[in-house]
Amino acid sequence: MGDIPQSHPRRSSLLARQKLVDAAADGLLADSAMIAHGRGEAFDYLLGERTSNSAKNAIHEASARLLAAEHPVISVNGNTVVLAGENLIRVAAVVGCPIEVNLYYRTHERITGLLERLSEQRASVAAGPAPKGWTGEWDRAVEGVGLLGEDADGRIEGLEGPRALCCADGIGSADVVLVPLEDGDRCEALIEMGKQVLVVDLNPLSRTSRMATVTIVDEVARCAAALLEEVVSGHAQPDDWDNQAVLSEALDIIADASAGE
Amino acid sequence: MGDIPQSHPRRSSLLARQKLVDAAADGLLADSAMIAHGRGEAFDYLLGERTSNSAKNAIHEASARLLAAEHPVISVNGNTVVLAGENLIRVAAVVGCPIEVNLYYRTHERITGLLERLSEQRASVAAGPAPKGWTGEWDRAVEGVGLLGEDADGRIEGLEGPRALCCADGIGSADVVLVPLEDGDRCEALIEMGKQVLVVDLNPLSRTSRMATVTIVDEVARCAAALLEEVVSGHAQPDDWDNQAVLSEALDIIADASAGE
Repeated sequence: MGDIPQSHPRRSSLLARQKLVDAAADGLLADSAMIAHGRGEAFDYLLGERTSNSAKNAIHEASARLLAAEHPVISVNGNTVVLAGENLIRVAAVVGCPIEVNLYYRTHERITGLLERLSEQRASVAAGPAPKGWTGEWDRAVEGVGLLGEDADGRIEGLEGPRALCCADGIGSADVVLVPLEDGDRCEALIEMGKQVLVVDLNPLSRTSRMATVTIVDEVARCAAALLEEVVSGHAQPDDWDNQAVLSEALDIIADASAGE
Repeated sequence: MGDIPQSHPRRSSLLARQKLVDAAADGLLADSAMIAHGRGEAFDYLLGERTSNSAKNAIHEASARLLAAEHPVISVNGNTVVLAGENLIRVAAVVGCPIEVNLYYRTHERITGLLERLSEQRASVAAGPAPKGWTGEWDRAVEGVGLLGEDADGRIEGLEGPRALCCADGIGSADVVLVPLEDGDRCEALIEMGKQVLVVDLNPLSRTSRMATVTIVDEVARCAAALLEEVVSGHAQPDDWDNQAVLSEALDIIADASAGE
């Protein structure tokens, strides 16, 4: 798409787009991944391309639930790895949980390609500085983040075919799953299994947003950066959570943006 | 993306997506085409995936202006050819105007690939039935539709590089240009050249929507089918046109959808 000037007002949005174009060329994304990203762009545009206060509350709650969980896991797909992989590895290092590559349109090639990409990201994160406020041995914490997805020895009940596969050590045994950019059917199936499901979804009307335990209506890269700050500060307790309230607040922002012209 | 059941409530949306995935595999689309389509999907979702009354008014006005023009032209890109090519060829046959393939990210390969696709579509349309209400010799009218784009011997003033190229017999000499899915800069440049610019854009806040002479806030395939009916009935005269009113009405629909949950 050509060079993007430093001064361009939508530079981060255009850079994200370029990352996905490159990842698609590398075979890391499903056919529908670019279209899904475009849908997200439109909602983010209507949301003002910033993390709302209600999204900040949802990130705070998601952080508390990840930290209080017995077996938390972060489930990632191609778009998530490309757009927010490094910060989610940092989150996993702080929380002490594995990351599972889990794809709706599962193929062996994309699973291994994404695990390789995550492994490179993990090495780069381990070699880099610890997040502000972190006091432990950073490189050891990062190198301890398990990268799962290859041995799909578990099942998500209620689903059929390759999309039902998961890792027994990851999603299979998790009590809390952070799963950005999830499909509605899978979100519902995970809820039916009794898990807490924390999602990141820019469409507050989607089935995923409405089914989840905690919905963060935010762009995944911005959300991952904010979530990292939360898990590092880390003193919150899970709260009674009114998920409908954050969805209503996101819809209010969209309605205001639409009424504002 | 697998088979789509006949009964699926969003079947037409999923079929459109599949057409674009196939066209991308055939090399007919720019990298950003799928993302642009996804943005459109999100706006169409908020608009209820139907042609609003104000979009119908805009289609009526666009039809009148095409029929009253001295040198009308329909400018198409990859997404437009894939999603609405056949009905736009029918519109061109009724209006008696050429179709120009004109690409923001212009490459020789995509221009020739899209002209080939249009040529196949034209043959199929010529062999098929005339639109209801048409009384002339249909196959001759269709075969007379000129397909332009290869010899870029004209320029859109005020633009730089390949995106400034156009055909002197097409956009170059046109007084009225129907250009679905256009970029904001190019829309503005065509307006600056004194042309009437009729656009199809699902985002009522986009620069294209705000710059155009007549903005049809509708999905391009639905719009092309409705426009065909209008040009065949063909008795309207161009009107004083308040384009801001259709944008406001589209924003009202989005605001109502967002407030409705």
